[in-house]
Amino acid sequence: MTVRFGLLGAGRIGKVHAKAITASSKAQLVAVADAFDKAATDLASQYGAEVRTVDAILKASDIDAVVICTPTDTHAELIEQFSRVGKAIFCEKPIDLDVERVKACLKVVDAEGATLMVGFNRRFDPHFMAVRDVIEKGEIGVVEMVTIVSRDPGAPPVDYIKRSGGIFRDMTIHDFDMARWLLGEEIESVIAQASVLVDPAIGEAGDYDSVSVMLSTASGKHATISNSRRATYGYDQRIEVHGSKGAVLAENQRPVSIEVANASGYTRPPLHDFFMTRYTDAYAREISSFIDAVESKSPASPSGLDGLIALALADAALTSVKEGRAVKVS
Amino acid sequence: MTVRFGLLGAGRIGKVHAKAITASSKAQLVAVADAFDKAATDLASQYGAEVRTVDAILKASDIDAVVICTPTDTHAELIEQFSRVGKAIFCEKPIDLDVERVKACLKVVDAEGATLMVGFNRRFDPHFMAVRDVIEKGEIGVVEMVTIVSRDPGAPPVDYIKRSGGIFRDMTIHDFDMARWLLGEEIESVIAQASVLVDPAIGEAGDYDSVSVMLSTASGKHATISNSRRATYGYDQRIEVHGSKGAVLAENQRPVSIEVANASGYTRPPLHDFFMTRYTDAYAREISSFIDAVESKSPASPSGLDGLIALALADAALTSVKEGRAVKVS
Amino acid sequence: MTVRFGLLGAGRIGKVHAKAITASSKAQLVAVADAFDKAATDLASQYGAEVRTVDAILKASDIDAVVICTPTDTHAELIEQFSRVGKAIFCEKPIDLDVERVKACLKVVDAEGATLMVGFNRRFDPHFMAVRDVIEKGEIGVVEMVTIVSRDPGAPPVDYIKRSGGIFRDMTIHDFDMARWLLGEEIESVIAQASVLVDPAIGEAGDYDSVSVMLSTASGKHATISNSRRATYGYDQRIEVHGSKGAVLAENQRPVSIEVANASGYTRPPLHDFFMTRYTDAYAREISSFIDAVESKSPASPSGLDGLIALALADAALTSVKEGRAVKVS
Amino acid sequence: MTVRFGLLGAGRIGKVHAKAITASSKAQLVAVADAFDKAATDLASQYGAEVRTVDAILKASDIDAVVICTPTDTHAELIEQFSRVGKAIFCEKPIDLDVERVKACLKVVDAEGATLMVGFNRRFDPHFMAVRDVIEKGEIGVVEMVTIVSRDPGAPPVDYIKRSGGIFRDMTIHDFDMARWLLGEEIESVIAQASVLVDPAIGEAGDYDSVSVMLSTASGKHATISNSRRATYGYDQRIEVHGSKGAVLAENQRPVSIEVANASGYTRPPLHDFFMTRYTDAYAREISSFIDAVESKSPASPSGLDGLIALALADAALTSVKEGRAVKVS
Repeated sequence: MTVRFGLLGAGRIGKVHAKAITASSKAQLVAVADAFDKAATDLASQYGAEVRTVDAILKASDIDAVVICTPTDTHAELIEQFSRVGKAIFCEKPIDLDVERVKACLKVVDAEGATLMVGFNRRFDPHFMAVRDVIEKGEIGVVEMVTIVSRDPGAPPVDYIKRSGGIFRDMTIHDFDMARWLLGEEIESVIAQASVLVDPAIGEAGDYDSVSVMLSTASGKHATISNSRRATYGYDQRIEVHGSKGAVLAENQRPVSIEVANASGYTRPPLHDFFMTRYTDAYAREISSFIDAVESKSPASPSGLDGLIALALADAALTSVKEGRAVKVS
Repeated sequence: MTVRFGLLGAGRIGKVHAKAITASSKAQLVAVADAFDKAATDLASQYGAEVRTVDAILKASDIDAVVICTPTDTHAELIEQFSRVGKAIFCEKPIDLDVERVKACLKVVDAEGATLMVGFNRRFDPHFMAVRDVIEKGEIGVVEMVTIVSRDPGAPPVDYIKRSGGIFRDMTIHDFDMARWLLGEEIESVIAQASVLVDPAIGEAGDYDSVSVMLSTASGKHATISNSRRATYGYDQRIEVHGSKGAVLAENQRPVSIEVANASGYTRPPLHDFFMTRYTDAYAREISSFIDAVESKSPASPSGLDGLIALALADAALTSVKEGRAVKVS
Repeated sequence: MTVRFGLLGAGRIGKVHAKAITASSKAQLVAVADAFDKAATDLASQYGAEVRTVDAILKASDIDAVVICTPTDTHAELIEQFSRVGKAIFCEKPIDLDVERVKACLKVVDAEGATLMVGFNRRFDPHFMAVRDVIEKGEIGVVEMVTIVSRDPGAPPVDYIKRSGGIFRDMTIHDFDMARWLLGEEIESVIAQASVLVDPAIGEAGDYDSVSVMLSTASGKHATISNSRRATYGYDQRIEVHGSKGAVLAENQRPVSIEVANASGYTRPPLHDFFMTRYTDAYAREISSFIDAVESKSPASPSGLDGLIALALADAALTSVKEGRAVKVS
Repeated sequence: MTVRFGLLGAGRIGKVHAKAITASSKAQLVAVADAFDKAATDLASQYGAEVRTVDAILKASDIDAVVICTPTDTHAELIEQFSRVGKAIFCEKPIDLDVERVKACLKVVDAEGATLMVGFNRRFDPHFMAVRDVIEKGEIGVVEMVTIVSRDPGAPPVDYIKRSGGIFRDMTIHDFDMARWLLGEEIESVIAQASVLVDPAIGEAGDYDSVSVMLSTASGKHATISNSRRATYGYDQRIEVHGSKGAVLAENQRPVSIEVANASGYTRPPLHDFFMTRYTDAYAREISSFIDAVESKSPASPSGLDGLIALALADAALTSVKEGRAVKVS
């Protein structure tokens, strides 16, 4: 079976997914929709697809699955619509910035028995996958403490930040998902600290740019997350898991692995400076995994529920910062 | 001037200090005191020193300074006694497990104008010193986030744990001191999580073996500490400081730096398995710094106040765990 | 302009080039030829190309360039034929195992003014390119000593070895080219050592499996090459250049960059175990560079002359082993 | 038994050995001799030893062993004299720059049954010892190829070079010894290349500053040595051994192991800049090993024969450069 795709949204991330779909021998990009005609036309013509409206894709009999890369505030509605017409859905995170809206959306998805996958791309990074593999093989025994460092090369525009739902829902949400995925047990308590250290304009927009989070599970496992909106040395993405028999860590990625030595010392180049080059492989594997799920009619993962839980953790973190206390999540 | 030393306590750490004193061209080990005659005699004879009682050392005119390595519950009393007779004092941490007792002791030290240095040996580790040097030179800009991972190879006997004051006062106290030393700003708020993951007997003794701590300062700087009483891979001691212009980190230390490659991969040997081999250089430099302070009649650092603040942070962490909230320290 | 391609040879390496051609927005794979019908048909259908004979491709007006991936003994003849019909030629190394035959072939190429590029893929590895970039920017001053370690995961079948022209012409030839490329000066003298340490069958086939080579230039620069047909830890490919102001090195590549720590130490996974996964990026960039040369009608590099010189160095190395002396090359 | 030492030569290396002798609980520094009174007096007084003449030490009944750190041209004569009076001898390399003189000297040593150890300190470096340990445990199978990179931070004064016997006898001699020690089989053939790239004055003095050497054994094992008199990044000392089942390598040593990250990349400090700080541990262990040999009346290693063979390899390398051919050694 070839999975026939409609792509909703031909922006930056839409292009990444279009490439991944086309590269798969099991999938075909049939149609592209975008509010901007030119964006849709350019992307469609590059890959031999058609330009269609969202409505046309909804009704199309030659489309099995959609990839939703439109603005966040359209996600929940689109998921509901495509659930009702029986198409498999891949949606970029988040489903919505409001937990209640997400819950309502997932009710529809469940009622329709729709296939829904949420875009937590980091689960598909080959290095992080290898970390999880080590855990699952029991090489480090029982997981005890997860440490995640996640820093962006630079802060996004303040306009973006205003619409983002705040750093916990926009940035840390990836790390909440990674923590759950690596702990292998649900998180019970969230404690967070947040400051504005990078840019006062971020504080004026009501957000933070530097946060630390501690998570714990019922059995007492810990996870620690450190986020900053700016790292001069590039896109700093490290995870480390300490267990009863050992530990495993994923190193940072660099575009080239050379080293220059001189009187100043030994210098390796900075890290990747952009999430798209850092996670190129992850994006490709993510779509590949979705295609496999659709083709084999098996549940897609990470699921809508994974998206909901990560969002709830973000909300809890914000509450923790505001109230200076540990916040229980259920 | 040669600084003439009396050593109180000829146990494990006393031997380390005896060696450091003897290796210095500016110091001389004159006398050793220990409750166990044989311990005192063995150590004294190895370095050509005399065996004396504590009282004799108190009254000795040929002794300028003492190193206190006796059990913790004798520290405060000894510091007060030696302050009153005008001898310079190096005391192993902690001064006492009770903050009020420490305050009372420091009042005496201040009143007598005594020289007191507290044994936070990690400040003298050459790698950590190099980290601080990078910070002080402004190479990473303004410090924003300090990350400390500190894990012991294995838990001490439960008997030790019962007398230790608990993991925050016994183990994390070093990391509280490191965090302050690296942040360059006083800590204002402490949040902690604690579990028993390594050994239930530690829990039965009323203590924890796995803790995570977050600290913040008035200006919003963060520090994160991760502790475990057991790491199969050795004595895991890492610090990392992220700032506005860059970051600096100290790598773990290994007894030998070789790598073996075969079909299983590339393997480097485990870390040091004992704090004394890990911090050999630090112990030597620590005593050297104390000798310099005594010789030049300048204040010793870390001071009694540094010891007090670290202990207060440990208390705050314990309160945070018990009450599930951020605890302010003043 | 779109460069329209004919692919000669649909084997392992032919498939790699077909993928690279198709991935380029400036190129199109028009036709595939292979002695085995099924190989040609499978590859052509995957990329929407036609199956044609070599003769048909020679005469085709809709083909601008060919990629030659046929057996080595057909290369020179095919290069001559396609030179005469004005098509640009990319040919896998070597042009021929016989230096005189290569010279004759290049005479035809020159006479026809044909575009010819030889497949020394390693020049296009991003890490090695970064090394060269560092050299060209003057960051390490004047190049003095190049060190190349190049070891295969395992020896090829003895049947392959018998037809390969021997280890110097088959394997070291890549390192001769790298040495020239990095030294930035022609090699004047070759000294080599060779043994059979891996598999006696290789010795019985008249070849070696373990060789060391030293090269020198007129100005006294050195290069050292170490080759083995077997490395249990994977495909070991390192280069290092020492100069008057510093040094630069390219580290080995691993499929995943994780590290597992336990009581045995810290282990990173083995290296890539196959040249095609190790040099995936290099193959893509190589064809991309050829397409650029054809499109812009500029000379392709590495050239036929580069191929000839590397082969002459291989011949000199063999002579050096046999005669136990330094062999001059001109 | 306490081994009672006389030290001949109170210069730079004499001081290092004096410290090592004094630090041992099994040895005592009894007397120091030096042509310069002040040098002898300073060193003797620091360690509570006496100043004596060489003659007095020769005749002393309270001295068991001598450490010879006098100028090279006195070594052979002193070894012979002290052999005849039955004292154990540790002599800095080389015994002499002339192979025939060394042979004559060793004949006396043998005839007298004297204990003689030659100062190839690198055999006692803990990292290199760990490499050899891995080999001896069979972890990498049969040794096939040894790669040694050895570069000095900067060239010594030309005056020193003139008296040094040339780079092969002065610098590479350490690497010849390491190669033998790691190959575990005698070297049969030497091929070398040598240039003047660092400083023309070295060439004018009749020496080289950049050399590459290839060695082979009867069974076909290889070793490669790369030497330069100058490395801007510090004292570059690496060994790597490739075998049938794997490989082992010793990394370079740095004074501090920190890393600074910023927009220019990740920088670790340069290597040690002086052989004495690089090989501090090696010097201490070397003397310790000599003391053990004297105390237990077992043969000392490396022996006089080890010194002779390394010198013969240096001579062979020089012949190889001059005659452009492989030189057999027996």
